[in-house]
Amino acid sequence: MTAESGRRSRGRPAGGSSGDTRGAILAAARSQFAARGFAATSLRSIAGAAGVDASLISHYFGDKAQLLVATMELPINPLDKVRSVVEGDVDGMGERLVRTFLGAWDPHRAVFSTMVRSTFGSADPRTTPVFQLAQNVLVSALRGRLSGPDIEVRATLVAGQVVGLAMMRYVIKLDGLADADVDTVARTYGPAIQTIIS
Amino acid sequence: MTAESGRRSRGRPAGGSSGDTRGAILAAARSQFAARGFAATSLRSIAGAAGVDASLISHYFGDKAQLLVATMELPINPLDKVRSVVEGDVDGMGERLVRTFLGAWDPHRAVFSTMVRSTFGSADPRTTPVFQLAQNVLVSALRGRLSGPDIEVRATLVAGQVVGLAMMRYVIKLDGLADADVDTVARTYGPAIQTIIS
Repeated sequence: MTAESGRRSRGRPAGGSSGDTRGAILAAARSQFAARGFAATSLRSIAGAAGVDASLISHYFGDKAQLLVATMELPINPLDKVRSVVEGDVDGMGERLVRTFLGAWDPHRAVFSTMVRSTFGSADPRTTPVFQLAQNVLVSALRGRLSGPDIEVRATLVAGQVVGLAMMRYVIKLDGLADADVDTVARTYGPAIQTIIS
Repeated sequence: MTAESGRRSRGRPAGGSSGDTRGAILAAARSQFAARGFAATSLRSIAGAAGVDASLISHYFGDKAQLLVATMELPINPLDKVRSVVEGDVDGMGERLVRTFLGAWDPHRAVFSTMVRSTFGSADPRTTPVFQLAQNVLVSALRGRLSGPDIEVRATLVAGQVVGLAMMRYVIKLDGLADADVDTVARTYGPAIQTIIS
């Protein structure tokens, strides 16, 4: 409506570079994950919205979970961390989860805090990347490693314990927990998580 | 600035009724808890701001924790619940905590969700009533009942587990946990909390 509007670019000049293609895929992915949820979104439908071939998504990002993580622009890759811990031995997994999670996020606590606060500030937390990461990466990875009764509830409780711990440490900053050293927390909290895993 | 402004009342007509006095105390308490934190706020300073005698606060509300709970206008009294659980036997406290907490909040999950979301949406979560309740009522009650090493971290972790559970169930609504029956959750999660308590 103003003289400037003629100068606006759609951000994808003709013959778009790889950066533009990546950006278009990420924008389409963010929008569809938020609107439909992780499970109901396909790489094909994201490719359609981004105007690219679906094989390009795999080329740039890998699988759907990796694409979700990429949309979050995180300083660390939580997917690699989660997979390496969960695929290891079930014994001691609780303590490894705490140690790995805090080791990765302690240096980025402000990022985590912002992420969690935008999740809870959202009208529907289930549409946010944090929820989708917890539900579709963490719970999903754990579910495959548990045996015994109530696997779904237990996988969810373990994920909840890890995310809850991070909230208390980074966002709420409870006295005594915010600055406790990782060793103390891992030694104390690990066995509590292990109780649900084993 | 408008014609209506002359009609605004300060809400405390001369000779104020008990409702006005209660309201003035609650308003002063909310403001001081948020600005100074629970520990640094005295009943005397609240009484001063409300323009009442400090003995009136005890008369209407009881002690400082009870006043904090009153400022939150909750559908249940979490203080009574917490105290009854924590003052009981240490054995089985984990499961009792889960059962009592969920039993109390399940019917009011929307209230809990709103409360948590306003806490995390706050620029400084530590000034919010939810934080102050967790830190000063739940952690404080637990601290007095634990023995062994790392009491501060452990009391905080237990409080974090309970609050985290409620977040996952009521706010984030993780699949598998949001609608799991209380018995299943208490049976599964209770022992995990107990690991930290005992």
